[in-house]
Amino acid sequence: MRELIDIQSERDGRGVRLDEVGVSELRYPIRVAGAGDETQSTVATIAMAVRLPHDAKGTHMSRFVEALEAHRDAIAFAALPALLDDVRTRLDADRSTVDIAFPYFVERRAPVSGQLSRLAIECRFRGVATADDGDVTLEVRVPATSLCPCSKAISDYGAHNQRGYVTIAVRQRADEARPLDIEDLVAIADEAASCRIYPLLKRVDERAVTMAAFDNPKFVEDIARDVAGALRDDERVEWFGVRVENHESIHEHNAFAATEWTRAATPSSPRHNGCASTATGR
Amino acid sequence: MRELIDIQSERDGRGVRLDEVGVSELRYPIRVAGAGDETQSTVATIAMAVRLPHDAKGTHMSRFVEALEAHRDAIAFAALPALLDDVRTRLDADRSTVDIAFPYFVERRAPVSGQLSRLAIECRFRGVATADDGDVTLEVRVPATSLCPCSKAISDYGAHNQRGYVTIAVRQRADEARPLDIEDLVAIADEAASCRIYPLLKRVDERAVTMAAFDNPKFVEDIARDVAGALRDDERVEWFGVRVENHESIHEHNAFAATEWTRAATPSSPRHNGCASTATGR
Amino acid sequence: MRELIDIQSERDGRGVRLDEVGVSELRYPIRVAGAGDETQSTVATIAMAVRLPHDAKGTHMSRFVEALEAHRDAIAFAALPALLDDVRTRLDADRSTVDIAFPYFVERRAPVSGQLSRLAIECRFRGVATADDGDVTLEVRVPATSLCPCSKAISDYGAHNQRGYVTIAVRQRADEARPLDIEDLVAIADEAASCRIYPLLKRVDERAVTMAAFDNPKFVEDIARDVAGALRDDERVEWFGVRVENHESIHEHNAFAATEWTRAATPSSPRHNGCASTATGR
Amino acid sequence: MRELIDIQSERDGRGVRLDEVGVSELRYPIRVAGAGDETQSTVATIAMAVRLPHDAKGTHMSRFVEALEAHRDAIAFAALPALLDDVRTRLDADRSTVDIAFPYFVERRAPVSGQLSRLAIECRFRGVATADDGDVTLEVRVPATSLCPCSKAISDYGAHNQRGYVTIAVRQRADEARPLDIEDLVAIADEAASCRIYPLLKRVDERAVTMAAFDNPKFVEDIARDVAGALRDDERVEWFGVRVENHESIHEHNAFAATEWTRAATPSSPRHNGCASTATGR
Repeated sequence: MRELIDIQSERDGRGVRLDEVGVSELRYPIRVAGAGDETQSTVATIAMAVRLPHDAKGTHMSRFVEALEAHRDAIAFAALPALLDDVRTRLDADRSTVDIAFPYFVERRAPVSGQLSRLAIECRFRGVATADDGDVTLEVRVPATSLCPCSKAISDYGAHNQRGYVTIAVRQRADEARPLDIEDLVAIADEAASCRIYPLLKRVDERAVTMAAFDNPKFVEDIARDVAGALRDDERVEWFGVRVENHESIHEHNAFAATEWTRAATPSSPRHNGCASTATGR
Repeated sequence: MRELIDIQSERDGRGVRLDEVGVSELRYPIRVAGAGDETQSTVATIAMAVRLPHDAKGTHMSRFVEALEAHRDAIAFAALPALLDDVRTRLDADRSTVDIAFPYFVERRAPVSGQLSRLAIECRFRGVATADDGDVTLEVRVPATSLCPCSKAISDYGAHNQRGYVTIAVRQRADEARPLDIEDLVAIADEAASCRIYPLLKRVDERAVTMAAFDNPKFVEDIARDVAGALRDDERVEWFGVRVENHESIHEHNAFAATEWTRAATPSSPRHNGCASTATGR
Repeated sequence: MRELIDIQSERDGRGVRLDEVGVSELRYPIRVAGAGDETQSTVATIAMAVRLPHDAKGTHMSRFVEALEAHRDAIAFAALPALLDDVRTRLDADRSTVDIAFPYFVERRAPVSGQLSRLAIECRFRGVATADDGDVTLEVRVPATSLCPCSKAISDYGAHNQRGYVTIAVRQRADEARPLDIEDLVAIADEAASCRIYPLLKRVDERAVTMAAFDNPKFVEDIARDVAGALRDDERVEWFGVRVENHESIHEHNAFAATEWTRAATPSSPRHNGCASTATGR
Repeated sequence: MRELIDIQSERDGRGVRLDEVGVSELRYPIRVAGAGDETQSTVATIAMAVRLPHDAKGTHMSRFVEALEAHRDAIAFAALPALLDDVRTRLDADRSTVDIAFPYFVERRAPVSGQLSRLAIECRFRGVATADDGDVTLEVRVPATSLCPCSKAISDYGAHNQRGYVTIAVRQRADEARPLDIEDLVAIADEAASCRIYPLLKRVDERAVTMAAFDNPKFVEDIARDVAGALRDDERVEWFGVRVENHESIHEHNAFAATEWTRAATPSSPRHNGCASTATGR
């Protein structure tokens, strides 16, 4: 067969460097590391990209899928730097980014009956790396019940409550050996809610969660602050973003609270901000 | 300019008649008739199609957009037959279908303070017609608060409640002059809920809706049945479908109840079922 | 602990039977039977429901999740009747429905280089059953390339082409032992397209698919008809619905073609139509 | 009526300042300023928030809807500072943010036949302001046709092409009186594509756009660079982000290119980064 021309490898004269060139909305079956030694099969939606120098015409998109096919059985927060390096090498690039979103299922035991079911937690690994520097963040989105303190206080009985979502993104301190994992962040969100959510509740359980939520009213602001407090107290966390969004039962819109925080003691090393700054944005 | 070949008008030998050939996911600015003489500007997502005989190669897709451009300022449930006729004529077809989905805003006055705000109701006009017969349905999706009777009964205090959606589709009796409109159906959904929803509530209003919902617990089944009862009692209704879906605050999944009904007195004329049978399906 | 009242089991006097009462939008990890003996882990979005007699107040929603937890490791088209029976038994109901949607990954080898990648096919098992009768359908949605015959014929060079989706739903003949499976339907959709789609293509492959599509122009009508023809020729098929939707590259809306067909030789037994009639609807 | 307690106004002792507390996913009918003196009715999805000091318990969510109701008839990029000020005043806050997303329709005349239709452009106004400083950005998402240069170069005939989306966000220079508007950015995206998109094309038009795209092949990288070049050349632009995403016709995933740029001559004043940094993120 004749040699096919490689347009992507030609020179470009427009002088515009592109921060990210790659693939997005790629759905792929992956295996993800869970708590302990367990791994879990799931389905990811993936974006992968490289930085393109001002004088290169294009990148070679098929190599992203090759990289993913090679790594898909061992996706983990701790393995992100290796994936980022491999992408950079395969694409002959000086900077790579990956964004891997997937549902991860946690087991739930109903609070009184103890019955088992599984709850989907939307998770996201995001990373960016050059040869010298890198940044990876872990994000989870946890459904939760919130019960409105104002509604409870001003009413003779009852209180409006609703399903909400607690989204937490974290960057781990570079010198920390003990890894942060998905289940750690889920536990923090569960603890901050008026009540945690279960796919399976018998009547005895429903009684328990109804009264637990009523005993524990929380504004969207309260949940965000309690999450923030727990993350500050965890020495492994260097940076976090939290966003709590309640699907108000008395409105059709949501109430939300969001904040970011960086540990002060951290030396203010320059950071690639392609990753963390948008971790909890819409 | 040379004459361009018209491939669509060629003959097809495969012997397959196509029920619907057309355009979908077309977003267009329209004006819609509301209650009384009012019209409302909104943004629709539209599908339009014709039946294609077994021996015709293809249809002429651009004519659907021409028809829409001609009718976009006067979209109404009552005007659907005229639009269906025009599509059939322009496309030289024996059967046409249209599906026009759009948000319609109703004014809401908060129950105590009386403050004004506007609530989006997702609406849908669906129609199908031949030269001799036709069928049009009107669908609305109304957000609503529901409060769980079981949770209230088994708990010492509190009750879980949540945002839900009441979807109602109706076909009007052919001999009925008084038209059913969007606001009629919204009123039925509002009445059947534990409490209606408002975009704007001051504290005095929040107290009122909290206690109203607690005083009026409803399963998803109850809401569906109360809607069904109201629609049966409305002589103008020949057929309806209702689907109520509650975004449970104690789960991440929904609870739903759905049913369809046709007025028995109606002569069982054969119906094109491209329209009504799926009116409330997902 | 005191006995908790069971409100759902109370009598209801409104006289409204509900066709479906259950759970929806429930995400759960499942294992699904693939071609041959293989099974595949994936993530499903599930609805399950029962019919509620006119005099029963409510159903017991937690039992749906119990049924799913019991069956989640062995979900298959052929196993749907057993799941439907189990739901009916657990819920003490006379009719049950299930709707299980999930991505299933098929292996793809690039046409020239032979490189391996995996393509997500959105699938759906739908079923409804009473003690005496039942109906199950299998649906797949296959991405595909289409190239416009009109654009090719009227232009001196080039032709617009685009990503489209071929959705096929089938009901199998009751007396057929050889099962229809996901990969059968994917093969029919692939064959009917201008060219099949691959996640990973090297330059030699890109040349091949570009020219293959140009050599094989197809209207949305053509793809629908070729799928219809192949399904009619498959003796195992009793009923099918097909919907092809092209995301036009020259418009922001889609072009679509849809049709349904029932094998004439089939005795016209009355069918529960909760399932098939909406199989390819939006 | 008794005085209702105002829990939101209580003190909070957790010491966590919240960057944003407010409402999101609020749908509302608005009128938006277009080119020249024209205004356009459309439907927006809105988020509004304020910063909450570390010692305030909560904010008063209903006031956001009051502000929106007051301003909804005169939404414009240039009017964003006034809206931000009003939110800050009503909520008694030191910083406010707004995010208003809506479809805006531009008229399109088919290139040969001249026939008129209307194309939806997803737009977004984002702003953040304190008493002393502020930042507003305008974002548009323009559908466009792209045709692959590699596919064209390596194939004997044909070339894959597809629908894509060009998203452009800009911040205007503070000293610039001539306003940037939606139609300016749409024109830049149109110019950079292989061919612009029209809702309505007759056969003579389809021939024209097919050949125009074939004559003008563009990688996703090329489109991003040509947009970047045009924005750099516009003296009114202080900062921009561009993201081009092609819905590849030969894959089910997308190809994308993204970059940001800040005018060097601009004094590097500290910026609130709640707005621009995420302007083109997903």
